Amino acid sequence: MDSNPTGYLGGKNVILRLEMSTDRIKFGEVATMIAKAGGNIVGMDFAGSSKDTITRDLTVNVEDAGDVDKIIEVIGQMSDVRLVHVSDRTFLLHLGGKLSMVPKTPIQNRDDLSRVYTPDVARVCMAIHEDPEKAFNLTIKRNTVAVVSDGSAVLGLGNIGARAAMPVMEGKAVLFKQFANVDAFPICLETQDTEEIIRTVKDIATAFGGINLEDISSPRCFEIEERLREELDIPVFHDDQHGTAVVMYAGLINALKLAGKTLKDVKIVVAGVGAAGIACSKILLAAGVKEIVGIDRTGILSKDRMDQFGNNPMKQWFAENTNQRGINGSIKDALKGADVFIGLSSGGIISREDVLTMAPNPIVFAMANPTPEIAPEQIEDIAAVVATGRSDYPNQINNVLCFPGIFRGALDCRASTINEEMKLASAEAIASIVGEDELNKHYIIPSVFNKRVVEVVRDRVIRAAIETGVARKIPREYR
Amino acid sequence: MDSNPTGYLGGKNVILRLEMSTDRIKFGEVATMIAKAGGNIVGMDFAGSSKDTITRDLTVNVEDAGDVDKIIEVIGQMSDVRLVHVSDRTFLLHLGGKLSMVPKTPIQNRDDLSRVYTPDVARVCMAIHEDPEKAFNLTIKRNTVAVVSDGSAVLGLGNIGARAAMPVMEGKAVLFKQFANVDAFPICLETQDTEEIIRTVKDIATAFGGINLEDISSPRCFEIEERLREELDIPVFHDDQHGTAVVMYAGLINALKLAGKTLKDVKIVVAGVGAAGIACSKILLAAGVKEIVGIDRTGILSKDRMDQFGNNPMKQWFAENTNQRGINGSIKDALKGADVFIGLSSGGIISREDVLTMAPNPIVFAMANPTPEIAPEQIEDIAAVVATGRSDYPNQINNVLCFPGIFRGALDCRASTINEEMKLASAEAIASIVGEDELNKHYIIPSVFNKRVVEVVRDRVIRAAIETGVARKIPREYR
Repeated sequence: MDSNPTGYLGGKNVILRLEMSTDRIKFGEVATMIAKAGGNIVGMDFAGSSKDTITRDLTVNVEDAGDVDKIIEVIGQMSDVRLVHVSDRTFLLHLGGKLSMVPKTPIQNRDDLSRVYTPDVARVCMAIHEDPEKAFNLTIKRNTVAVVSDGSAVLGLGNIGARAAMPVMEGKAVLFKQFANVDAFPICLETQDTEEIIRTVKDIATAFGGINLEDISSPRCFEIEERLREELDIPVFHDDQHGTAVVMYAGLINALKLAGKTLKDVKIVVAGVGAAGIACSKILLAAGVKEIVGIDRTGILSKDRMDQFGNNPMKQWFAENTNQRGINGSIKDALKGADVFIGLSSGGIISREDVLTMAPNPIVFAMANPTPEIAPEQIEDIAAVVATGRSDYPNQINNVLCFPGIFRGALDCRASTINEEMKLASAEAIASIVGEDELNKHYIIPSVFNKRVVEVVRDRVIRAAIETGVARKIPREYR
Repeated sequence: MDSNPTGYLGGKNVILRLEMSTDRIKFGEVATMIAKAGGNIVGMDFAGSSKDTITRDLTVNVEDAGDVDKIIEVIGQMSDVRLVHVSDRTFLLHLGGKLSMVPKTPIQNRDDLSRVYTPDVARVCMAIHEDPEKAFNLTIKRNTVAVVSDGSAVLGLGNIGARAAMPVMEGKAVLFKQFANVDAFPICLETQDTEEIIRTVKDIATAFGGINLEDISSPRCFEIEERLREELDIPVFHDDQHGTAVVMYAGLINALKLAGKTLKDVKIVVAGVGAAGIACSKILLAAGVKEIVGIDRTGILSKDRMDQFGNNPMKQWFAENTNQRGINGSIKDALKGADVFIGLSSGGIISREDVLTMAPNPIVFAMANPTPEIAPEQIEDIAAVVATGRSDYPNQINNVLCFPGIFRGALDCRASTINEEMKLASAEAIASIVGEDELNKHYIIPSVFNKRVVEVVRDRVIRAAIETGVARKIPREYR
């Protein structure tokens, strides 16, 4: 980093790179000034030197961003001291990116070179040319997933474009490797045209055994995923939709146990009818839920209002596939007597009073980010279970519980697709990690660091793939 | 590998995976039969077991492929023994591919997770969104190159397609990492349409700081490279053209010293007017060579024959830019009195008699693969220097000497392109590794394993990039 990102800081360590004269008294002065400006020097590293100057990295703890600005100001006033740059730990962690491509076998001599590259590699090429299926054995395709985004709906940041999306996709690749030993590579596309995205992903699919779509805005994400699922013979999985749906459903399985209710009997309200809202509703229908009511800012989505949904395929889908009783009205009307609230909308849209009108033992999944539809502390005493998308409350609905294991399973059985059965199996697997004796209203879903999650999800996904005939290879232990 | 690749073997170790009964006598019998069939068991590993069977990997040394067939036959005749598969070391080395994606910083706890992924990663995304140049600092772009092929001209194997090209591109990525610590990723395209290739590479360029084009057939390779060079702001380098040209020129610089000749005075014959032939001729012209004569199967390319070159831009280029004296005829006519022969054509096309008609102290670069235009041993006594593309003769013209260092330099100074000056500088750098006191007719070019090559090429490339104004960052040591 060559510039000052202090605008982003707050209550954290920052690292100041200072070039100053080699005079030791000068360093003492600098330290004093930093302390006076509100900084606490907690570390120092040598970063280089010349004849007259020494460059030091000072790790300075500050209460808030304003302190950093003050420190920068006082340093600017000192002679013989130059502030080279300011970084915080998150930025330092991102320097040069978060991934490295590493050869599995090093080339140490001419013999190695002749096997990894010409002339011997030609025999491997010809083996694949004669039997293209061998690409799964003899290339990285066996274990490699593309993390594909067009940067159009990155986190909650909106359409920030391909370059700015890279840190998220790299992060996702890190998670793939760390949690499930899946090699993943970030592909951020400099186009947001549906057809061009589809064509590009198909053109580069050679190296990959699966495609994880990420942070693509709706409704384009539906067509892109559907078309790629049809036109590619490897799994294509839009994590924002299905990852969320799988983990939500896993949580719901356990929440219903606590509430003493069953899926086929509950009335569910889904607020927010974007990509995740549709995916959650679809998995619930596939799991056997009979009554779902969808709602957006305009109110309950019903067939009566079909003429208002002309250009919105998501609202049309909701009107056609949910709300069988055909009710109309506001979110307050929807919640009356409902057993479950699934929120994928925006912060603070429901109140304690609304939850009080729900059926006894209500289940509230308030997953809007960063602010939930209702703060858990407001309803903890009246809800059977509350879950959110946040890590600072209990019961975090986090996609990291799903995508590593589901791809691990799909790759290991060389699945041609990830179908509904595999998603349901994943959810059941995640739910099963929480034992009956451990289950309570603050623990319905395992921690993302629970190492058993990937293992159990993988196992259930492989079994489901084999049962539904999409596994192109039966791993040894399943024969 | 699930099938038998014995067709490819010869004088090597093969590995036989055998499932046999747990009876120890059975193993003795198997060993005896393998020995009788011509195999020498040089290693054994345990590979698994069940109640009644044990699976062993036997490493067997054989004289030739026929022996493997005999061994497979005798094993097929034995009861209670099943040949699971046969592999050789090259194939085993390729199992699962040759590259792994590795996180630079492991995620050990929730704090790490929040920095590498949400929520903290959002600050990094926004920093890039506000200043897209920061992608070079905060993503893998800084050190990552795409190795792009459409599989249309892979090694000498022809148009074998994207999947079959993967092992070569993975191998190239391994070399990038091993020789120059450049992270490279193989992109094999499922299209051979020029426009679609250009569009796809542009669409996925986000993650990359450079594009290495590889094994794309001519003449499409020219337009693809030219257009991408114009339309992207990162270096685009077709290694088959420029890597070959740079290393050839490096060798020629030293060969001319031995022959006591200078570039501006020599007459050069270039045989084979494909992508590499054009690139070699271009670098020679840029270096100051005055007289080049190009030749293909139809004879010397001259302006007189322009009407025959209607659809071939390469032949047109040769006719327009070389052969200033306007000579015509066969390769024999071309070679009379020539100082240098640069062969990029096919095996055995020139004879000792042809070389005897060249000027005194002739230089012969017979780079056709796998069979040179003339075997070095035929002319060793009459040529000043002979070089080939092969590792089993002295003076191997190998691209590995160029591409790692040239990209290392280009990435380190964030070059917007790799221009002619940088290529010439690379060649001079490679040539300079061979000291005046070491230089002899069998040693005009350093070994690919000489670690100084990358270092010196990088240095010269960075200096050339700075001098020509294409460096967007001046590395500390050059300030």
